[in-house]
Amino acid sequence: MNRPDTVPQITLGPLPASEKTYMPGRLHPIRVPLRRIATGEGAVTVYDSSGPYTEPDARIDIAAGLAPVRLPFARDRGEAETYPARAVTAADNGFAEGARLVPAFPLRPEPLRATAGRAITQLAYARAGIVTPEMEFAAIRENEGRTAAHSRDGEPFGAEIPDLVTPEFVRDEIAAGRAIIPANINHPELEPMVIGRAFKVKVNANIGNSAITSSMEEEVEKMVWAIRWGADTVMDLSTGRNIHNIRDWILRNAPVPIGTVPLYQALEKVGGVAEDLSWEVYRDTLIEQAEQGVDYFTIHAGLRRGMIGLTARRVTGIVSRGGSIMAKWCLHHGRESFLYERFEEICDICRAYDVSFSLGDGLRPGSIADANDEAQFAELRTLGELAQVAWAKDCQVMIEGPGHVPMHKIKANMDEQLKHCHEAPFYTLGPLTTDIAPGYDHITSAIGAAMIGWFGTAMLCYVTPKEHLGLPDRDDVKTGVVTYKLAAHAADLAKGHPGAQARDDALSRARFGFRWEDQFNLGLDPDTARAFHDETMPKAAHKEAQFCSMCGPKFCSMKISQDIRDAAAAEAGTCPNGLSPED
Amino acid sequence: MNRPDTVPQITLGPLPASEKTYMPGRLHPIRVPLRRIATGEGAVTVYDSSGPYTEPDARIDIAAGLAPVRLPFARDRGEAETYPARAVTAADNGFAEGARLVPAFPLRPEPLRATAGRAITQLAYARAGIVTPEMEFAAIRENEGRTAAHSRDGEPFGAEIPDLVTPEFVRDEIAAGRAIIPANINHPELEPMVIGRAFKVKVNANIGNSAITSSMEEEVEKMVWAIRWGADTVMDLSTGRNIHNIRDWILRNAPVPIGTVPLYQALEKVGGVAEDLSWEVYRDTLIEQAEQGVDYFTIHAGLRRGMIGLTARRVTGIVSRGGSIMAKWCLHHGRESFLYERFEEICDICRAYDVSFSLGDGLRPGSIADANDEAQFAELRTLGELAQVAWAKDCQVMIEGPGHVPMHKIKANMDEQLKHCHEAPFYTLGPLTTDIAPGYDHITSAIGAAMIGWFGTAMLCYVTPKEHLGLPDRDDVKTGVVTYKLAAHAADLAKGHPGAQARDDALSRARFGFRWEDQFNLGLDPDTARAFHDETMPKAAHKEAQFCSMCGPKFCSMKISQDIRDAAAAEAGTCPNGLSPED
Repeated sequence: MNRPDTVPQITLGPLPASEKTYMPGRLHPIRVPLRRIATGEGAVTVYDSSGPYTEPDARIDIAAGLAPVRLPFARDRGEAETYPARAVTAADNGFAEGARLVPAFPLRPEPLRATAGRAITQLAYARAGIVTPEMEFAAIRENEGRTAAHSRDGEPFGAEIPDLVTPEFVRDEIAAGRAIIPANINHPELEPMVIGRAFKVKVNANIGNSAITSSMEEEVEKMVWAIRWGADTVMDLSTGRNIHNIRDWILRNAPVPIGTVPLYQALEKVGGVAEDLSWEVYRDTLIEQAEQGVDYFTIHAGLRRGMIGLTARRVTGIVSRGGSIMAKWCLHHGRESFLYERFEEICDICRAYDVSFSLGDGLRPGSIADANDEAQFAELRTLGELAQVAWAKDCQVMIEGPGHVPMHKIKANMDEQLKHCHEAPFYTLGPLTTDIAPGYDHITSAIGAAMIGWFGTAMLCYVTPKEHLGLPDRDDVKTGVVTYKLAAHAADLAKGHPGAQARDDALSRARFGFRWEDQFNLGLDPDTARAFHDETMPKAAHKEAQFCSMCGPKFCSMKISQDIRDAAAAEAGTCPNGLSPED
Repeated sequence: MNRPDTVPQITLGPLPASEKTYMPGRLHPIRVPLRRIATGEGAVTVYDSSGPYTEPDARIDIAAGLAPVRLPFARDRGEAETYPARAVTAADNGFAEGARLVPAFPLRPEPLRATAGRAITQLAYARAGIVTPEMEFAAIRENEGRTAAHSRDGEPFGAEIPDLVTPEFVRDEIAAGRAIIPANINHPELEPMVIGRAFKVKVNANIGNSAITSSMEEEVEKMVWAIRWGADTVMDLSTGRNIHNIRDWILRNAPVPIGTVPLYQALEKVGGVAEDLSWEVYRDTLIEQAEQGVDYFTIHAGLRRGMIGLTARRVTGIVSRGGSIMAKWCLHHGRESFLYERFEEICDICRAYDVSFSLGDGLRPGSIADANDEAQFAELRTLGELAQVAWAKDCQVMIEGPGHVPMHKIKANMDEQLKHCHEAPFYTLGPLTTDIAPGYDHITSAIGAAMIGWFGTAMLCYVTPKEHLGLPDRDDVKTGVVTYKLAAHAADLAKGHPGAQARDDALSRARFGFRWEDQFNLGLDPDTARAFHDETMPKAAHKEAQFCSMCGPKFCSMKISQDIRDAAAAEAGTCPNGLSPED
């Protein structure tokens, strides 16, 4: 690649055999991206979260950021106004300076917030009966170009999944609190998407700089790489230095919702000493991040002081970072959590920018032994109370869930969540179904993720092979995303999502028809599929072979099966009884 | 490694921090291997299918084979006798000759078979109320050194899982047809194991030479490698040349049951032309393999001629190799399958050597679209009929299952199998829960495998990342086995297997206590876990660090949680109410 030094190494270009298509809105002037995969029997259209990076002629300049494809509805309506932003402080970047300071993003427009007295959240508009551009955008994406249902034989466990998603349906689900569109009005680069159990199961990928300083190119590329493989949202869990500036670079280049855990940055601002946290520092951090455009905040407001003792006999105590930080604060000060006490004030901030809540499960189980215990469920019930507080403030809410849960205890998590959190979308980390496979926890958790997705979880937070062991690298991120995409898809199939099976069927027809390239291209990871095939059958001609290296031509069941089909058709012509099961 | 050229490169030596221990029998002079993993809080004892290869001072000579640790019970009782073996023919090795012929295994003792009129199967003995050494051996393994149940909160779906497995319990399960011990009397190298839904879920790994000629060392090593990572049985699916000789090398060095699909070799003997198959060739192949010591045969006798038409509208037709071969034969000859018509004669052969049946699902679905269709279930009902025929002949039986099945249709597979196959053990391939992830089908299928294992499947046939794409290499085999071990373990946990959670708990305590080495060693793949940790924290001192690279010391929830526990204990001393949930 012959690039000038100033152009970052962002992965660009379409996936194999794929082209972007844009569908127009009916109600609003929007262009909704979808991906069309060309095959020998026509194109298959699929959801596309990858943003402009996969356009064939993508002109990406991360220092300019993506085009503001979304002009927030609230601004158009005159219900939001710009104002002078909070001043960036040295503490915002962990006091990084000189060569260690990641440069600020070049552009800094004034932030928007709701004009006084206005509720500008998607929930407020939905309740008012208004279909926003964000709702129509999300609705069109969900249908993946379909005009009818493909297959409807799943078990949705009470989720009411329509044949086709209309903008009005999205509105109604949001109004009911059963879905959210995370869409900060300060994130105009966003391609809006909807999270709720009546919709396709979504996948979140975590990225973060951790303790090691990274460049802005590297951080943007992490996000681009994750969405290339299908991540629907990305959480920036950076800690240490430069997190303000890195977040700006990510947001300005992010077509997907970006989530954060503001507590991490607040802790950095007080030198990493949990006891020194205060409402003032935390509140300042919320405003800082809301002005930047963060779409959803993980807030561990459900962990109350009185619950901490419930973890005393656990095998793995408190494994949530945010949860453990707040527990430490509560114990040190002998006080209730300020996140709980100040929750209405937090809602007021989120409401002004339409930052969605991801109410954090600080007491999620970190081991099979601790699954579904009283600590976990006490917090879950509190999260349900907080959801109602947030809804009263017109704030959008989802609820975070575990963690480590054996298979037979997964359904109870969903049932309890639906019951106590009033159908607010559930967003779970896995869950891991056993503790004994470090190095393979993307798989131990994909099992739990697919199941809980089937049962009704709206978004799955990915787990990479490095979970519990180290920082995921580029390959780990890809493995984690693809693993979770397949788990989410398995859940969509089992729920009876009306479009899900079309892709399976197209791939299986390609497989049965020995259309190898189509089989690769219809898969979640065409590159890996093709590379695996090349290992034993590298020649181009093998991509048209009527067999593969596994069985060879004599033993190819697909080949024989096609011969049988021909023979059976011939036999059926002369002797139909020979083919009946009563023979 | 400084080895002479004649010593094959077989992977030897214990897994990290592990030692073999042998438990004696109470009824029989047996020594049952278990693996003890040393940790900072004492040893954890686990099931061990790896055979003598993991002894610290293993003296392995593959040209001599393993010691005959099992002296078949029938021989001791004088109910089996040696006889001159069937002569090996050139066709047995696919007419390989000269340099292409893999040498015959050096030793060829006369085979054993039942004396006339005797039933020497484990089922016959169980029905007679006899506890064989094989039964006691298998029983002791199941308990993993436990003397009491560890945890019992699962949902077993009707499986009656005892706190401790006694030899008598194994006998009773076998007598009821609910379990099998695959143990050909000509496989004295075997360490017997039991397959049934009241026992730990087992994993099978497939190996095979396919079309490329391999050396005998390579083929033996494939088996040794698979059992090192936990495969409980191994199927040799070799085709092409040398399959007789390679099978001998594998069997004489195999401490686990070896399964085959005799149809593959029979097809080779007739030049790969399915239409030229005959009962005589097939029968000859059964005897050939039974004399060698194959422990279980996959036999696709349930695919009847009349069912073939039921596949005509499938998306992926017939995807079982054995199924497609037999379907082709039936259509060509316009006749019922000779496997079905001759099933009683097949039973007579299997009965004479105690070869167990793995009744093959030739009509398993090869795509989500074809799951649970009439073709599949018509065959399943026939397999249930055949199980009763086999039982009437004192033959042990398990039933093969799918395949590709979306999550919401998995339970029906188990329910139908239990109902129509009279609780004969179920042995499934996955099932894959979506078709759209070639390159990741170990994961799409681990989801289904874990679920169907929970519901009652007794053994899971692994799937590697190369499924549908190519031949698995060494890494793929390991990935497949470890993935299936974690799926089987997740199933054991969910069923409430009384010992399963002990290992999870030990690993989680190690994790919470920052005993990194223990965490690695208690995992299914210590090498990979350690390597992943080394990538970001390579120093030895990091293995005692009170944090890891993911969050760093300030954000380590485990560290904070331990601080909290200390603080909570202190606070509880002075202010217990501060820790109650009513606070």
